Amino acid sequence: MAIQTVGIISKPRKQNLAEIIPPLTAWLRERGIAAILDRETAASLDPSLRSQINCPVIARSDMGARCEMVLVLGGDGTLLAAARAVRQSNVPILAVNLGNLGFLTAVTMGELYVSLEQILNGQHQVEQRKMLQIQVIRGEEEAACYHALNDAVMNKGAISRILDFETRVDGRFLHLFKADGLIVSTPTGSTAYCLAAGGPIVHPAVDAFIITPICSHTLSNRPLVVADRSVIEIVVRTEAESVFLTVDGQVGLALHADDRVRCSLSDSRIHLIRPPHKDFYEVLRSKLKWGER
Amino acid sequence: MAIQTVGIISKPRKQNLAEIIPPLTAWLRERGIAAILDRETAASLDPSLRSQINCPVIARSDMGARCEMVLVLGGDGTLLAAARAVRQSNVPILAVNLGNLGFLTAVTMGELYVSLEQILNGQHQVEQRKMLQIQVIRGEEEAACYHALNDAVMNKGAISRILDFETRVDGRFLHLFKADGLIVSTPTGSTAYCLAAGGPIVHPAVDAFIITPICSHTLSNRPLVVADRSVIEIVVRTEAESVFLTVDGQVGLALHADDRVRCSLSDSRIHLIRPPHKDFYEVLRSKLKWGER
Amino acid sequence: MAIQTVGIISKPRKQNLAEIIPPLTAWLRERGIAAILDRETAASLDPSLRSQINCPVIARSDMGARCEMVLVLGGDGTLLAAARAVRQSNVPILAVNLGNLGFLTAVTMGELYVSLEQILNGQHQVEQRKMLQIQVIRGEEEAACYHALNDAVMNKGAISRILDFETRVDGRFLHLFKADGLIVSTPTGSTAYCLAAGGPIVHPAVDAFIITPICSHTLSNRPLVVADRSVIEIVVRTEAESVFLTVDGQVGLALHADDRVRCSLSDSRIHLIRPPHKDFYEVLRSKLKWGER
Amino acid sequence: MAIQTVGIISKPRKQNLAEIIPPLTAWLRERGIAAILDRETAASLDPSLRSQINCPVIARSDMGARCEMVLVLGGDGTLLAAARAVRQSNVPILAVNLGNLGFLTAVTMGELYVSLEQILNGQHQVEQRKMLQIQVIRGEEEAACYHALNDAVMNKGAISRILDFETRVDGRFLHLFKADGLIVSTPTGSTAYCLAAGGPIVHPAVDAFIITPICSHTLSNRPLVVADRSVIEIVVRTEAESVFLTVDGQVGLALHADDRVRCSLSDSRIHLIRPPHKDFYEVLRSKLKWGER
Repeated sequence: MAIQTVGIISKPRKQNLAEIIPPLTAWLRERGIAAILDRETAASLDPSLRSQINCPVIARSDMGARCEMVLVLGGDGTLLAAARAVRQSNVPILAVNLGNLGFLTAVTMGELYVSLEQILNGQHQVEQRKMLQIQVIRGEEEAACYHALNDAVMNKGAISRILDFETRVDGRFLHLFKADGLIVSTPTGSTAYCLAAGGPIVHPAVDAFIITPICSHTLSNRPLVVADRSVIEIVVRTEAESVFLTVDGQVGLALHADDRVRCSLSDSRIHLIRPPHKDFYEVLRSKLKWGER
Repeated sequence: MAIQTVGIISKPRKQNLAEIIPPLTAWLRERGIAAILDRETAASLDPSLRSQINCPVIARSDMGARCEMVLVLGGDGTLLAAARAVRQSNVPILAVNLGNLGFLTAVTMGELYVSLEQILNGQHQVEQRKMLQIQVIRGEEEAACYHALNDAVMNKGAISRILDFETRVDGRFLHLFKADGLIVSTPTGSTAYCLAAGGPIVHPAVDAFIITPICSHTLSNRPLVVADRSVIEIVVRTEAESVFLTVDGQVGLALHADDRVRCSLSDSRIHLIRPPHKDFYEVLRSKLKWGER
Repeated sequence: MAIQTVGIISKPRKQNLAEIIPPLTAWLRERGIAAILDRETAASLDPSLRSQINCPVIARSDMGARCEMVLVLGGDGTLLAAARAVRQSNVPILAVNLGNLGFLTAVTMGELYVSLEQILNGQHQVEQRKMLQIQVIRGEEEAACYHALNDAVMNKGAISRILDFETRVDGRFLHLFKADGLIVSTPTGSTAYCLAAGGPIVHPAVDAFIITPICSHTLSNRPLVVADRSVIEIVVRTEAESVFLTVDGQVGLALHADDRVRCSLSDSRIHLIRPPHKDFYEVLRSKLKWGER
Repeated sequence: MAIQTVGIISKPRKQNLAEIIPPLTAWLRERGIAAILDRETAASLDPSLRSQINCPVIARSDMGARCEMVLVLGGDGTLLAAARAVRQSNVPILAVNLGNLGFLTAVTMGELYVSLEQILNGQHQVEQRKMLQIQVIRGEEEAACYHALNDAVMNKGAISRILDFETRVDGRFLHLFKADGLIVSTPTGSTAYCLAAGGPIVHPAVDAFIITPICSHTLSNRPLVVADRSVIEIVVRTEAESVFLTVDGQVGLALHADDRVRCSLSDSRIHLIRPPHKDFYEVLRSKLKWGER
């Protein structure tokens, strides 16, 4: 991969961007690489700084077509939003955390330039991560369609009564149960909300989705792992209640009575750059405080 | 207990009340016992039926002072609402479920008259259940005060980010953690929402409160059982998010930033009538499908 | 599949075999199909009955080569033992439970003849189930090798102290933790011991293994699902304690200090016959008492 | 409490005792306080060292009568053994951990002399901890009787089949279920094995016992907290299997068929010395890695 242009997407309104972006664009320029900012990142910088660094500013969704690499500065949330925006390209993404270690953002600011060197030298791996396609079917129509790197969550409002979920897998009835909510997640999302709800950790190489109830009133309910070629369909059977669908914890809509939420494998893949010596299990141990040898 | 007046509180708009109330009031009248209806129950009956049964109609909160027994017809939810309404009296309550077996409503409609006979003959026990007092402290003021038979729940709205909870017990720092919510419950409430969130079952005779996180992001968090002479204080540290306090799943309010929710033992007790042969463990086995010998 | 010979393997010493085997062999004979018994099944029958039914008796491990179908009569345990015995052939297995519904033995005695008819008419499906290969490496040698349809369990004796487990996946360090035991299971085994230890339910079509700690003292430990092309290696680091390896809950050995237990995908597959209208999710709902619509 | 004699009980064969005991006995002697060693501690010292420090050596069980304070040097295990030995006296115990922080041994070696000073000055609190009495009833006889500070565990051997437990509370049937084992614990024991098996944390001030199944096959089984005036009776119904009773993880016996294990409140109390600024919740946060503010 000969990198000529790097797109930069950062967490908006992050204070230290003013200290990070100028030396970064300068560092790239010295190596003959152009930088492009997305609109939100540009808007987080002072106009004087913007004119100083003098980079093109484009929409996130255009980044994939214009760059050979996207650099995401922020936390897991920033990466999730960036991933959805560039999902239709195959552009590889390097995610650098500006604060705490994330499951998806394992490179720290202190490791930024070393990692970039390694990538320019080809000493890295690119990991494909699958995405979940979520369609909301209202009557016979598709009312909405989303793509998630982590998960789709259907849950109740804070003051609502408990919900009745009816689920089907590949057209066959799975269960009907009362709960606060239900999560359908990818292996990538298994270490996110799913984990807090009692789900298992699923390695990204497993071709599966995880269906995890949130506070099920049927105590024998358990997280269920199904092959990702399966189609999962959920209908919330509770009337006159507020039920929400949230995608990657970031976007979503209020569901209507009898809406069917249909989860299947997305055609999109996210290409995450993994620098050498960054290991899935090492991140797990660190994030979950498992201790060391 | 010489019963002269029985108050009747039912689940509103329950269709079969028209078939239940007239024979019930007639049965009581034959035994020289007057019946009183609360306003919601009366409003659920046809005017012609109301004039036929000819019972006084009063506010729920006055029932305790006017009756020697309150008969609750409905599910656990109806019982919870009735309990909060009469909590300042010591009136004993008989709860009869109109649908499915409840933890608090173990007597079925089919057992109603047998149970009433047993009670009139004194063949029953009265079980005291403790309540939780919940004060919302805003600045230096008490913004609200509630009494719960089951629980106080602080949780996030459906589309909110995760919350930061800071908890103290008896003035000492307990923990600061990220979660969807937090439940403080009585032993009576341990078999309600608490159980779905992963809490233990606590026998009503244990003098304790249970603090149970809902989907904690700190995986080593666990339900904590403390003595009910303890004072539990919770502050939600997340800014600019919608956080709700719900009492017994029925009443509550939106919390403001820095509101302190203070949970302690209420002075009120609920007096539940337990007919002979109705056993806490039997209800557990039946509700949780533990099977039999 | 033109069936000429059916092998019969039953739970040993099951009382009602005397009533089941003779009509079964007669039924098969009427259709021109020969029956063969394994030694344990034959030994469970009276000599007079054995001579009456007049079937060849062979070792279980020879059944695969001699039959076009194996009929297992018993519970999940009987099926597991039979599966390990015939694993090197591709013979399809029909499992019929003689008592309670099992996850692997969903056909009841009452459905036996209908199911056999359907199979002879080709109205059935054959489901491939993967197996786990478990090697015990002692020093540089392979001290033992097993194949499991369900799981490999490493655990402590009843009066032993807690154990220290060190695990690796594909040569990379996963974790070191204190626990009573550790389960490595196939998706087929996910509904067996794994489930009692807190593991997820994994559909048999998922190409994965599940690593589940038993009573881990690190509370943030969670079941981990990895791709079944991975190699899982476990070393018990506790000295001078009794540690056992058990395969499918049936066979195994005492581990020595520094033994490495190496789990990988077995070359063997088990071919389970699934009659029409028998569904994985239906069995789940029934076994876990999830209730119906 | 005017302390004239301090009994010293240490973890046996702990290497650094030779460096700890002589200055400790000298420090006490300077303050006019005699030291006494238990036999196991004395046996861990060189004969020359023993004659140098010149302290009386007595049985652990006599310590309570001879001392005004017992100093335990070791981990939680050493404290548990010491507690059972001195339980019939009311002697207060100071527990100092020689290695990692324990739930019961929150004072470190570095804090030893400061803590002793504080105790001699009366700047400490004594916390009463209740104990569990465990009787094994065989036929009509009491076959064994134990007292536990933490817990009684009934479980299966490593290669045994699953067990059938039948439990009663106060003579009433609780449940019959299949599991690997069952724990009955005090609040003190709630942070020990109980926690690994999924039990709640119970503050020592709660007057309760906790009944926690180990890997129950009935998924809706949950830990149950009952008042400590209750009597819990357990019968293992599985025949011809090895079942063990273990008390505080240290002593116990093999159970026979139909043995009844009867758990009730012991008359004994343990008196734990808590130095100022040592807090139950602080130890929890530290041991469970909950993080800080």
